[in-house]
Amino acid sequence: MQAPPAKPGMTIGEIDTPALIVDLDALESNLDRMSAILDKGRVRLRAHAKTHKSPVIAHMQIARGAAGQCVQKVAEAEALAFGGVRDILVSNEVVCPQKLARLAALTHIANVALCADSLAGIEAAASAARDAQTTLTVLVEVNVGGERCGVSPGGEAVALAQAIAASPHLRFGGIQAYHGRAQHVRDPAERKAAAVAAARAAAMTVEQLKQAGLSCETIGGAGTGTFMHDLESGVYNELQAGSYCFMDADYARNSPDPDDARPGFRQALFVLSSVMSVPRPGIAVVDAGHKAVAVDSGLPLVFGRPELSYVSASDEHGKLTVSEEKPAPRLGERLLLVPGHCDPTVDRFDWYVVIKKERVVGLWPVAARGAMS
Amino acid sequence: MQAPPAKPGMTIGEIDTPALIVDLDALESNLDRMSAILDKGRVRLRAHAKTHKSPVIAHMQIARGAAGQCVQKVAEAEALAFGGVRDILVSNEVVCPQKLARLAALTHIANVALCADSLAGIEAAASAARDAQTTLTVLVEVNVGGERCGVSPGGEAVALAQAIAASPHLRFGGIQAYHGRAQHVRDPAERKAAAVAAARAAAMTVEQLKQAGLSCETIGGAGTGTFMHDLESGVYNELQAGSYCFMDADYARNSPDPDDARPGFRQALFVLSSVMSVPRPGIAVVDAGHKAVAVDSGLPLVFGRPELSYVSASDEHGKLTVSEEKPAPRLGERLLLVPGHCDPTVDRFDWYVVIKKERVVGLWPVAARGAMS
Repeated sequence: MQAPPAKPGMTIGEIDTPALIVDLDALESNLDRMSAILDKGRVRLRAHAKTHKSPVIAHMQIARGAAGQCVQKVAEAEALAFGGVRDILVSNEVVCPQKLARLAALTHIANVALCADSLAGIEAAASAARDAQTTLTVLVEVNVGGERCGVSPGGEAVALAQAIAASPHLRFGGIQAYHGRAQHVRDPAERKAAAVAAARAAAMTVEQLKQAGLSCETIGGAGTGTFMHDLESGVYNELQAGSYCFMDADYARNSPDPDDARPGFRQALFVLSSVMSVPRPGIAVVDAGHKAVAVDSGLPLVFGRPELSYVSASDEHGKLTVSEEKPAPRLGERLLLVPGHCDPTVDRFDWYVVIKKERVVGLWPVAARGAMS
Repeated sequence: MQAPPAKPGMTIGEIDTPALIVDLDALESNLDRMSAILDKGRVRLRAHAKTHKSPVIAHMQIARGAAGQCVQKVAEAEALAFGGVRDILVSNEVVCPQKLARLAALTHIANVALCADSLAGIEAAASAARDAQTTLTVLVEVNVGGERCGVSPGGEAVALAQAIAASPHLRFGGIQAYHGRAQHVRDPAERKAAAVAAARAAAMTVEQLKQAGLSCETIGGAGTGTFMHDLESGVYNELQAGSYCFMDADYARNSPDPDDARPGFRQALFVLSSVMSVPRPGIAVVDAGHKAVAVDSGLPLVFGRPELSYVSASDEHGKLTVSEEKPAPRLGERLLLVPGHCDPTVDRFDWYVVIKKERVVGLWPVAARGAMS
């Protein structure tokens, strides 16, 4: 684990770089905004902790009404449970016995659930629950357009739900119906169409389950890109948005829905970098490459400095070009980068440096950093 | 920090996933091979620790004749020095006072050097050395074609070298003349041409420095893609290859030099993953996405399984397609992935799981994981 790059009270210029920065006002604004949108009570927020990896932020969400948290991995569930989070869904398949044993062990300190998309996975979960003398809640993952994991909507999902319900060691928890690819469809009409199709597939599955005598406690899905449509569908009762707390350059590339300005989330996450070289006119190099800022969803932006373009990332270097007729940044100057993709960028750091009005007001551990198992 | 995913004595099937695997026989073969190639004594290996981030592997390289190690960041230098490595070059600019103070502090336990490409950087290094009552060795970084950091070859480099030599707190250590982009030029003739041009620019600079009365103790550069040409140039006296110890899918895409089979490095680094879903015919999903295996230089390959193609990575999922008429992998089956890019993949993990003939024989910490500052 790396030492924290700052101390409370420091100014931005005193923070060692690269550092992962959270603007506390922007974070709280985003959390409040989501809470206000979902304030009708019919649909719960189960915020996705794969974004923030932090019990601190999980508790801020829960204090604003979130029902609990989602994670993708058992190790993330452990980090949250050990940080006092009491309701956790692994929104993903878990099939290896040693992972399932760890998840079953958590049932003594938290409500935990997982997903399955196969009979073999259900049998493995039942064995682990039996061995641990506990009960595991299992949701059936339905492929509603993401084309990754999940069974087909309708009959296949019903068959798995029946197998779960028939196991004395498992409890049928409902369906997981997340359409990941829809989140980043740029055109708002196409994005809405993908969300509507996903909700229809989920609704059809819920109806067939009902006909088979199985009710869905949880109908979960949604992300930051589609949650307004998922909310309006009337199908989902748990929304799993995660990125909304921080936002990123990739979400900023989604064209907003012209009919709905309610989301309006602010950029709350940055990577603070220093200019380490100004080797030639028009070029500056910062000390944050793709080891510091994830580039899987595109290069970062330079916050508040439209004259600077981050044009290439190597492991430890980011190369910037400067628009003509603008001065280059100074050697040692601090620049805030807006990550292309928030979730994996957070995973690069051990500490959040939390700032408010340009002063460090907190250092929070990224508790589930590297929690991939 | 995450718990180790294995214990010594375990078989591959018992290792929790995803896990970072080193094949010890392949690693030792690669280290021995490089040592044999450089056995003439005129050119030293200063292996780049940005690949392995590990004092354990650094000492294996030094035991085979390496003069020391390179790193890109002060925090990496600290991790190596605290692990007993005594000769470390930061092959990169360091300009922030707090970083330079940390580097100066290391001079009491190791020989440390850094690079500069500006008068301001040299002045900052001199201040830090003066404040710490020590001497820092500074190399001038020359842009020999990489077009990232570094001054132009010749006169600009001489002017900086003179400024270093004139400082009572600094020692002029030579030049850093690394051509990063040349390493991954696919065509062997074009790759050689880039290396030859870099060596010429370095030689011209060394000559001009000599005319100015300055001798270069170190003329450093080279990487795994070009080191044979850099060796044969007769210009460099320190080669900074790093990836050769592990190799990766991106280096495997370089066409080999038809005239020289000597390198012949083996793939020694893998990410062990498990199949977590087999949702549709022809598709399998593994539990290692781009959080586990860096995709900045392309997607991973599935080792020894040509019928499987890793076609897309999300944070925690890797989607594989299966060639027609071949059986899909089983749920829970372990698959070894060859990372697209070794250095940042290593940075994703806290532990190396070291195997020999399919048994775990060691767990080594990735000591400089996240050492970006």
